[in-house]
Amino acid sequence: MNTLTDNPITQIKNRQAQLVKALKPLLPEHALLWEPEDTIPYECDGLAAYRQMPLAVALPETEAQAVAVIKVCQNLEIPIVPRGAGTGLSGGAMPIAQGLVLSLAKFKKILHIDPIARTAVVQPGVRNLAISEAVAHHGLYYAPDPSSQIACSIGGNVSENSGGVHCLKYGLTLHNILKVRAILISGEVVEFGSLAPDAPGLDLMSILVGSEGMLAVITEVVVKLVPKPQLAQVIMASFDDVEKGGNAVAAIVAAGIIPAGLEMMDKAATRAVEEFVHAGYDINAEAILLCESDGTPEEVAEEIERMTEVLKNSGAIRIQVSQSEAERLKFWSGRKNAFPAAGRISADYYCMDGTIPRQHIATLLKRIQDMEKKYQLRCMNVFHAGDGNMHPLILFNGSDEDEWHRAEAFGSDILETCVELGGTITGEHGVGIEKINSMCVQFSESERELFWGVKAAFDPKKLLNPDKAIPTLNRCAEYGRMRITGGALPHPELERF
Amino acid sequence: MNTLTDNPITQIKNRQAQLVKALKPLLPEHALLWEPEDTIPYECDGLAAYRQMPLAVALPETEAQAVAVIKVCQNLEIPIVPRGAGTGLSGGAMPIAQGLVLSLAKFKKILHIDPIARTAVVQPGVRNLAISEAVAHHGLYYAPDPSSQIACSIGGNVSENSGGVHCLKYGLTLHNILKVRAILISGEVVEFGSLAPDAPGLDLMSILVGSEGMLAVITEVVVKLVPKPQLAQVIMASFDDVEKGGNAVAAIVAAGIIPAGLEMMDKAATRAVEEFVHAGYDINAEAILLCESDGTPEEVAEEIERMTEVLKNSGAIRIQVSQSEAERLKFWSGRKNAFPAAGRISADYYCMDGTIPRQHIATLLKRIQDMEKKYQLRCMNVFHAGDGNMHPLILFNGSDEDEWHRAEAFGSDILETCVELGGTITGEHGVGIEKINSMCVQFSESERELFWGVKAAFDPKKLLNPDKAIPTLNRCAEYGRMRITGGALPHPELERF
Repeated sequence: MNTLTDNPITQIKNRQAQLVKALKPLLPEHALLWEPEDTIPYECDGLAAYRQMPLAVALPETEAQAVAVIKVCQNLEIPIVPRGAGTGLSGGAMPIAQGLVLSLAKFKKILHIDPIARTAVVQPGVRNLAISEAVAHHGLYYAPDPSSQIACSIGGNVSENSGGVHCLKYGLTLHNILKVRAILISGEVVEFGSLAPDAPGLDLMSILVGSEGMLAVITEVVVKLVPKPQLAQVIMASFDDVEKGGNAVAAIVAAGIIPAGLEMMDKAATRAVEEFVHAGYDINAEAILLCESDGTPEEVAEEIERMTEVLKNSGAIRIQVSQSEAERLKFWSGRKNAFPAAGRISADYYCMDGTIPRQHIATLLKRIQDMEKKYQLRCMNVFHAGDGNMHPLILFNGSDEDEWHRAEAFGSDILETCVELGGTITGEHGVGIEKINSMCVQFSESERELFWGVKAAFDPKKLLNPDKAIPTLNRCAEYGRMRITGGALPHPELERF
Repeated sequence: MNTLTDNPITQIKNRQAQLVKALKPLLPEHALLWEPEDTIPYECDGLAAYRQMPLAVALPETEAQAVAVIKVCQNLEIPIVPRGAGTGLSGGAMPIAQGLVLSLAKFKKILHIDPIARTAVVQPGVRNLAISEAVAHHGLYYAPDPSSQIACSIGGNVSENSGGVHCLKYGLTLHNILKVRAILISGEVVEFGSLAPDAPGLDLMSILVGSEGMLAVITEVVVKLVPKPQLAQVIMASFDDVEKGGNAVAAIVAAGIIPAGLEMMDKAATRAVEEFVHAGYDINAEAILLCESDGTPEEVAEEIERMTEVLKNSGAIRIQVSQSEAERLKFWSGRKNAFPAAGRISADYYCMDGTIPRQHIATLLKRIQDMEKKYQLRCMNVFHAGDGNMHPLILFNGSDEDEWHRAEAFGSDILETCVELGGTITGEHGVGIEKINSMCVQFSESERELFWGVKAAFDPKKLLNPDKAIPTLNRCAEYGRMRITGGALPHPELERF
């Protein structure tokens, strides 16, 4: 590092000049950004509460260009933050002050579709929904469907192991991909996984999935495709008590049914949504469940009948089955618009992503009700109930600093309750920068040491997305002290230069 | 190491005495074996061609005892070979000359069954089939069903990521477990995975699955249970040409059908089996397919009809559908007895486990026919066709050293052809000691370096099952030279002390 001065601003400017000079010969002119007016769109991802300007943003158009960029960063020891569509909700793609953002936005080709093997080879910048659109004429689609599927990219999905409403039946991203091609920090290109069902050696592809850009930079993904079901129908069931609704979820799964979707919303959520999209929800119910069945018409008829019976036995007070595709989409439109609906009724909202074993849904809901009183903030609850993946949306006003601190504390309290109930601090949104302190609660020191050991195998200099996803031992020691004194950890990443 | 003498036998005897002295106070008397007449049953696993006597065998009965044993080995730097039921087919549980065998055979309790969450907590020594038997009264079972399921244990299944005839629909071991509790080489006990669907941080559970005892010693597994289908039926279809049979497999999957089982056998296999168990196979067919459907009676009827149509269009010359549960089991009895049937017609057989993309089944079969001429040995072919997982059984006479060398070369040739066709050298039997040289062909040097890096994160001193599964860089360099000169690598592990 060239440091003839001790002034930190000058140091960073010098570092930036060094990086830009090294990258300029390797990229087309429009593919390298460093002026603040050009890089400001990259200062955060979907978690806009956390912002940081990078040294520069590179948008390579070919794998060879990406390799060259990575080699420069390795030589100069400049950290790299890989970025897909930037829709992530945990700050995983938030820049690092002294780092480069490596955007894969130009990698948006679908390279090959094989309808016989039911696979597609896609570049990481391809949008999730674009895959399903491209293979629709073969009667196929790509199953994992995060709510952001119109915008989010498959590279980001792999990095976060994204889920969606259909993941109970069809699995997470991990279960729907076969191979990942990626660039190591050395610049070498490696393929992980196999077109065959099981690869020998250690399962490095699985560890790459959900690794939040910390191990390698993805350049190609082989996804599995599944046949579009002939028919899908959804049941909307109302409950006068959240506990009954939570127990109905467990009862459906215990009955041996694996619905294509199994979602739950509480009264605060259904009311906010109903005012917004008029999905036909029962706004007097304490909780509603959406239970989807898909398959052949015979399969769907039989499964809808069985689910209806379980729901009635679980105390559902109203049951309605979609009678057309339009009505099915209308029922889902409410669930899919829960986040914008929260945005309509509150200046800001903070979306949590904890996951718990299904049988504890009712317990967690009651604990959240107590927390609303403790933190003096409202919370609306939307869940991928079948997976036990909860999205409590904490409503607050971000211009009131005290409300933001209470919202943060409320969020940590929910996540730590999830851990206490045998669950985890994140289901599908990743750890990123947002939940890095909660990782200290989720994992023991020796588990975090194993993470760091694996990280070192891929990236010994810690250049790939550092300070994300896995907290250092020091950070956890510090967090432990802060929790005891009741203080809030400062976020040094929040400061811009 | 106590070495006042240069005599290697004396050295080993001293080492053994040191180990036994340290372990005796930690274990019940019957749980520590070191006399050759006691340890000889442990000198090999299911791959009996490779044998080695260990220093000693420990059979702890509690996790605390296992921890104590591991700590002693760590202090004395004595390698540990964890062992389940010893049914593995790749020598993964074969002892190491200077090492301890750590048998988990006494860990055979089913600790907890939760029919609502559909999970069971089991110790690693529990037999695969014993889980299904224990939960049958809840209408549940554990899906992965290796042919050895009567004998093999769940700890071994996790270590090898075992499959079975139902894995096309229900997934491999990886897809059917939620958590693994294991002892690290430091003696610390860690739980990997989560009862919730996705755990944050790096996915260390997935990397533990299939790691062949190289990363940690498993002490508990949380398995998923699935509802027993109301009905299952199997179609037996005959083809006058192996290529048509292979293409029928691809056509079924391309039609959007995911059969509960999809198996193929060639003429050599059906003839050997039919003489042995009289399963009713068509011994004039060049290949037969077994295609199973399970579910509700309506689902099965519909799927059997669709599969029958695809099979007819693919050129099936005879189609027979099981008309009773007894007939279904009779059809499967042939497939499940293919290995002993090979044992009846040949003094020895060598079972391969390559996996290829489904569309190349016919190509591989033709290449194997050519190899039969080249190596002057017969081969019968049994496949998990839906998975593309092939089990060619090379027939030879082990007392003829030249035949054994030809069988080994034949096997390597098949596996390297699998890699050439985009597949892998092992589907479900693991690498162990048997396929360690083929790993040099399957993976590049930098991929093997990543494996070693991950290994180092768990086991920096390389004490857990060393010299298995991942070849050293030296070994691969040596193998490269041997392949060029056409020689066979000596197996130093074969020598007993």
